[in-house]
Amino acid sequence: MGVRLADLVEHLGGSISGDANLIVAGIAPLEHADASSITFLSNPKLRKQAGDTLAAAIIVKASDAEFLRDQFNGTLIVVDNPYAYFAKAAQFFAALTKQPIAVGVHPSAVVDPSAKIAASASIGPLVCIEADVVIEDNVRIDAGCFIGRGAKIGADSHFHANVSWHHDCRIGQRAIIYSGAVIGGEGFGFASEAGRWIKIPQTGGVAIGDDVEIGANTCIDRGALSDTIIEDGVKLDNQIQIGHNCFIGANTAMAGCVGVAGSAKIGRNCTFGGAAMVLGHLTIADNVHISSGSMVSRSINEPGQYTGFYPLAKNADWEKTAVIVRNLDSLRDKVRAMEKTIQALTESTNATPTKDLT
Amino acid sequence: MGVRLADLVEHLGGSISGDANLIVAGIAPLEHADASSITFLSNPKLRKQAGDTLAAAIIVKASDAEFLRDQFNGTLIVVDNPYAYFAKAAQFFAALTKQPIAVGVHPSAVVDPSAKIAASASIGPLVCIEADVVIEDNVRIDAGCFIGRGAKIGADSHFHANVSWHHDCRIGQRAIIYSGAVIGGEGFGFASEAGRWIKIPQTGGVAIGDDVEIGANTCIDRGALSDTIIEDGVKLDNQIQIGHNCFIGANTAMAGCVGVAGSAKIGRNCTFGGAAMVLGHLTIADNVHISSGSMVSRSINEPGQYTGFYPLAKNADWEKTAVIVRNLDSLRDKVRAMEKTIQALTESTNATPTKDLT
Amino acid sequence: MGVRLADLVEHLGGSISGDANLIVAGIAPLEHADASSITFLSNPKLRKQAGDTLAAAIIVKASDAEFLRDQFNGTLIVVDNPYAYFAKAAQFFAALTKQPIAVGVHPSAVVDPSAKIAASASIGPLVCIEADVVIEDNVRIDAGCFIGRGAKIGADSHFHANVSWHHDCRIGQRAIIYSGAVIGGEGFGFASEAGRWIKIPQTGGVAIGDDVEIGANTCIDRGALSDTIIEDGVKLDNQIQIGHNCFIGANTAMAGCVGVAGSAKIGRNCTFGGAAMVLGHLTIADNVHISSGSMVSRSINEPGQYTGFYPLAKNADWEKTAVIVRNLDSLRDKVRAMEKTIQALTESTNATPTKDLT
Repeated sequence: MGVRLADLVEHLGGSISGDANLIVAGIAPLEHADASSITFLSNPKLRKQAGDTLAAAIIVKASDAEFLRDQFNGTLIVVDNPYAYFAKAAQFFAALTKQPIAVGVHPSAVVDPSAKIAASASIGPLVCIEADVVIEDNVRIDAGCFIGRGAKIGADSHFHANVSWHHDCRIGQRAIIYSGAVIGGEGFGFASEAGRWIKIPQTGGVAIGDDVEIGANTCIDRGALSDTIIEDGVKLDNQIQIGHNCFIGANTAMAGCVGVAGSAKIGRNCTFGGAAMVLGHLTIADNVHISSGSMVSRSINEPGQYTGFYPLAKNADWEKTAVIVRNLDSLRDKVRAMEKTIQALTESTNATPTKDLT
Repeated sequence: MGVRLADLVEHLGGSISGDANLIVAGIAPLEHADASSITFLSNPKLRKQAGDTLAAAIIVKASDAEFLRDQFNGTLIVVDNPYAYFAKAAQFFAALTKQPIAVGVHPSAVVDPSAKIAASASIGPLVCIEADVVIEDNVRIDAGCFIGRGAKIGADSHFHANVSWHHDCRIGQRAIIYSGAVIGGEGFGFASEAGRWIKIPQTGGVAIGDDVEIGANTCIDRGALSDTIIEDGVKLDNQIQIGHNCFIGANTAMAGCVGVAGSAKIGRNCTFGGAAMVLGHLTIADNVHISSGSMVSRSINEPGQYTGFYPLAKNADWEKTAVIVRNLDSLRDKVRAMEKTIQALTESTNATPTKDLT
Repeated sequence: MGVRLADLVEHLGGSISGDANLIVAGIAPLEHADASSITFLSNPKLRKQAGDTLAAAIIVKASDAEFLRDQFNGTLIVVDNPYAYFAKAAQFFAALTKQPIAVGVHPSAVVDPSAKIAASASIGPLVCIEADVVIEDNVRIDAGCFIGRGAKIGADSHFHANVSWHHDCRIGQRAIIYSGAVIGGEGFGFASEAGRWIKIPQTGGVAIGDDVEIGANTCIDRGALSDTIIEDGVKLDNQIQIGHNCFIGANTAMAGCVGVAGSAKIGRNCTFGGAAMVLGHLTIADNVHISSGSMVSRSINEPGQYTGFYPLAKNADWEKTAVIVRNLDSLRDKVRAMEKTIQALTESTNATPTKDLT
């Protein structure tokens, strides 16, 4: 079950300073690593701790390697980006212990005869696949998933158990969809007439690129007349809601519980902290970073980090400040009035001695 | 696949100004419509754009029809509420392309023999229906749904795949329930004793009216001793949480990620923006509108729009204002102290010249 | 279907003042109770109302019993904690009407032959159980659940329909898991490299103690290298998100829509109001109580109640205060400048009369 460091470097790059024939069994954080594992140092502040690690080898950048050569007896793997290298090494080790998947369609699955399912795909127990679905090579659909009519799933994708994937929604290659995700539910669209809601049929779909991850119980609604669009490399955590006709640019990542209302257009390489919310029909530029718990209520044209949540306090202190916030306009009015009074006082005080002097 | 305008108007009302024999294939927004489609104008600001549309016909109100008669060569359908008419027309077109549904119970479904299922209903693959369930005419239950003992589903309702509908919960006619919704889970009720939580059994149900829509992954808890109640025409978007024993009045609509804590009583014709939150045991009047991201912490007796979220700012600016908010009481105390000082100064300054004058 | 009060007290404790042979059919709140039911008084403010109840018997504490002896003709059950006693009595009555559960594996379930399932367990229709799962005595797994390879479910636990429980996740005895919950999805872990996200495999599990309740559509992610840990007696409501490698201490309770980001360490006996959010890697002490809608952005070392949400206001008022909040630093700067001016004025005014007097 071990991996020779030379083999790891052959696959993932980097240069070895030390024993290239060392065999390691896995990867572990600095403080838990032992002689059978490699570890990594990505934060220079942990240099000292890295010197004390029991790991067989450390993944480091060149500047830290310099420092560690005196402090650490083991082997160094010198790379440009130790954290990304750690991620790839962890994938490498995980692949070694991966359970083999049964290829083919489980007899308890219900598959429409018109569906085109690659011979290399794995369709789990109690899955339902409707008419005209296309499932490409090496796709894995776990137990209890529903794949609606006309959907298309790109090669090497993995749907975890109990995903609901609605008709005519498409996703590219290497997708990972977690349990309970609902893709292609109908958007929340109504016209109001005489106090009642008239449903607007949602006839668009959801079009998703390659290398997209969609978290557990996350929802992406289908578009009203055209598609909801998720570009390549987008990563969505759990419990996220993406409204109809949203556009999410490539490589944007959203943490858990984020909500994006309908028709919002979000740029590329953005990040959203947990429970951030975006109102509908807004536009957010590329490289915008929204902090957790923040409500985006206007479009953002300039890259940068944006925040908006009420600071936490002891409850009694919050009660005090909340009352003042609620009445901030009267505080501001007081300050304005005082400014005028002071202005008048200053003039009169300055005037008084002047008069006295004349 | 086309529809003659005269036939559309016969079904939906309105009057035609132009060619009533025109045949159109669908409906599209102003900017995407072509000669095979109709479009609509509901916002007078888009009048100019409507004049330039390539659509065969436009749905307009009388005041805009006046303006467009000179600007637009096609046909006008004149109606009172173009947006509601658009919704109905879209439903009309959607019905034309609707997939036929297989009536009957799919052989892979597990249905208790005591369940009463209308002959016109469609029970999809891998559905589980427990004892004493009643399913009325034309109901459609998609793959993987669970319908618990004693539940009742009104005519013409549609449950999308993988809904969990618990025992003894009832819903009226024309419901639409989206995937992953959980109705009738047990409410969060505990008594505290010596630092441990004692569960309070939740023996009420959920009683839901006609024409209700429940979004994907939305939860409605059953009541503790009596029912949770959702009135006719309520529309709930995705990822919503409704606590035990809530009451939601007719035609109230809630956008995604809203949370309503237990025993809240919400009026009719209310709207809740995304991620709005309502504390437990509150009462909210009819016609109250809560903005997105707002926390309702007190009962609301007066109709109107209410808001409460921290405004977004560049992170550095937020950090500055957040510190001031946290210390607002000291800022207010300073202002109060200054007021007194100014008052004293004013008196003494006024006094000084007065003295001088005597 | 009735219960003799003497039998109730024999099971649950307390002392009877009145007719111990009375037979009651159930439990109801003060205002709805009738002669066939018992009720309870836990809030002394409701003493007067309790005097008027039509219930056959009231659960009270000694101090209220004193008062009620003159006001109420029925029987009193005197206990230390009437609300906790009510919960236990309600459990007692609920057990009497509990539906019998079919023991054994439903023929439509797909169970790997290597799974060890207790003979007393009930595995519902359309359940999927993978290899090496262990299911202990009296466990009930309802329709459509997925239990992944190597999972372990403790005795007397109940999984409601459509739970997704991933490989190698363990839970103790007497668990209740509601529909749509997803336990052991992969945490949201990525390293960034050249603008793209590299997935970090999540190879830890989820380890959960005894007497834990997990609400509908709640997610708990598995750990990256080590386990996510939930201690005994934790109660999680619906729609909650617990990130990878979190630790939640015993008897902590969280209301609906709470989010806890990865690696947060939360103490024992804490409570979280609905939609409270906790950033990653924070530490929260025992006995901390977070109000609904509050964002915890720093570690909390001291027990107590903490709050942080923007107070709700009429929209027009909010718009005014929000502008001031956004510019609070300029208001504070004005106040600072005024302080200096006033200081100078005070000195000069004090100086002026003094001069005059000399």
